[in-house]
Amino acid sequence: MSATSTFDQAIALARTERAAVHHAELDASWGFGPRIHGGLLMALAGHALSLDLREESGHADPISLSAYFLSAAQSGKAVVSTQVLRRGRSHTSAMASLAQDGQERMRILATFGNLDDQPSAAPVQVFTAPPRMPSPEKCVGTEAAPPELLKEAPLLERLDLRLDPQCVGWALGAPSGQSWMQGWLRFPDDREPDPLMLLLAVDCLPPVSLDLGVSGWAPTLELTAHIRARPAPGWLRLKHSTVLVGGGYMEEDAEIWDSEGRLVAQSRQLARVGRA
Amino acid sequence: MSATSTFDQAIALARTERAAVHHAELDASWGFGPRIHGGLLMALAGHALSLDLREESGHADPISLSAYFLSAAQSGKAVVSTQVLRRGRSHTSAMASLAQDGQERMRILATFGNLDDQPSAAPVQVFTAPPRMPSPEKCVGTEAAPPELLKEAPLLERLDLRLDPQCVGWALGAPSGQSWMQGWLRFPDDREPDPLMLLLAVDCLPPVSLDLGVSGWAPTLELTAHIRARPAPGWLRLKHSTVLVGGGYMEEDAEIWDSEGRLVAQSRQLARVGRA
Repeated sequence: MSATSTFDQAIALARTERAAVHHAELDASWGFGPRIHGGLLMALAGHALSLDLREESGHADPISLSAYFLSAAQSGKAVVSTQVLRRGRSHTSAMASLAQDGQERMRILATFGNLDDQPSAAPVQVFTAPPRMPSPEKCVGTEAAPPELLKEAPLLERLDLRLDPQCVGWALGAPSGQSWMQGWLRFPDDREPDPLMLLLAVDCLPPVSLDLGVSGWAPTLELTAHIRARPAPGWLRLKHSTVLVGGGYMEEDAEIWDSEGRLVAQSRQLARVGRA
Repeated sequence: MSATSTFDQAIALARTERAAVHHAELDASWGFGPRIHGGLLMALAGHALSLDLREESGHADPISLSAYFLSAAQSGKAVVSTQVLRRGRSHTSAMASLAQDGQERMRILATFGNLDDQPSAAPVQVFTAPPRMPSPEKCVGTEAAPPELLKEAPLLERLDLRLDPQCVGWALGAPSGQSWMQGWLRFPDDREPDPLMLLLAVDCLPPVSLDLGVSGWAPTLELTAHIRARPAPGWLRLKHSTVLVGGGYMEEDAEIWDSEGRLVAQSRQLARVGRA
């Protein structure tokens, strides 16, 4: 992990005089719509939890992390605090909070453990498959995005995100009506994936509601990520899907696959859609 | 809602001298394996949140609720406390904790709102379908369960749960290898479904790992439920599925459909499986 990658800069933390309280700086270049991207906030809080729980119990890897988004984060200073709820042999459960100027932006519950400490004899049964799509070179990069979108979502320049050409109808004014979206992701500076990147990656694709013809951002109320394995170096494959858009809400499920074809993360979020 | 139904008795709360702190009594008859059933704990904490947030802001319905299970709840006294994190126009976000003798059993983050206050103009798009299965009369009730299971899981007598005959191979020593399970659910005393019952219902089917040949209980680390609509009276249809059992963990997704064929709740949990 390069200490100078833009992602590692974005999730950098400075210790304070108080244990389990960290200072961070949210950079405007990680903005998405009117706020700092929620995935970046999860990675930042995940980083604070990883540092504190490694010291506490050696449990440095997120296994499950649930984030509730309370108010829109802006660029500028932020404070991340953590609190252990329960220490166990295999897991430590904890809470984290991200605040700016005393306003809480995000509250997190999480269980941390050690991804290398999984019973090798445990069964593996997989009932899904990696997304099938053209190679990254044949997919649609963010350089093809409309300039007004890039202006609203500078985050897109922090990511090398390539959408399956089947999933870009919405951007051309012709939503496909598909309930799923997929693409490739890596960092432009080749910073390799790790569990903290996965916390960002679960929320990097455009909302599937766009390709269903429901316009507008889809602000996340809640997102829970499960990290299932440490990802191999290389491109990640992302797939999002929904089974129900209704009543002003959408559930959106994500799968993240690594370059060795393993399902390394899953997430589900509830977002607001189709409201004024 | 009948005040004397066994479910309403089980989630009854007594006010204490402190605001937002409630007393409850966990009855052994809601036991499942070595602990009080997690779904009942979620319904109980959801009840406390509903009472407190109704007073606070009129937001009495769970929209999203994430529960982290910290230690096994036993029968006996419990204390449920709640704390508002953010009041908004449409939603109130809050935290809840359930403890026994000073030991925390479960911590919850949740967003509450009003299920009747959804924009009628909002689009509804559904990409899944209710479970197809024989009528409740032709499904397999818990009276068919082995007596040793009923002894270990008295909860089953609190529920009128009827499994699709396709999903009972595990109980006969011949797991089907299917990655899903489905059935019907109502309360034996005809107490009708509401959002609090849905918080119980998302964790009422046997773990799908059993029908995959992975024996043993599947203790939940984390479960997030999204309540999508107020359920109609009558039977609920439940479907659980997994896409990945591996590394000692299983993700399990639930859909709950009401008697009018609407998807009223979704959940995802991470459980431990196949460990000693």
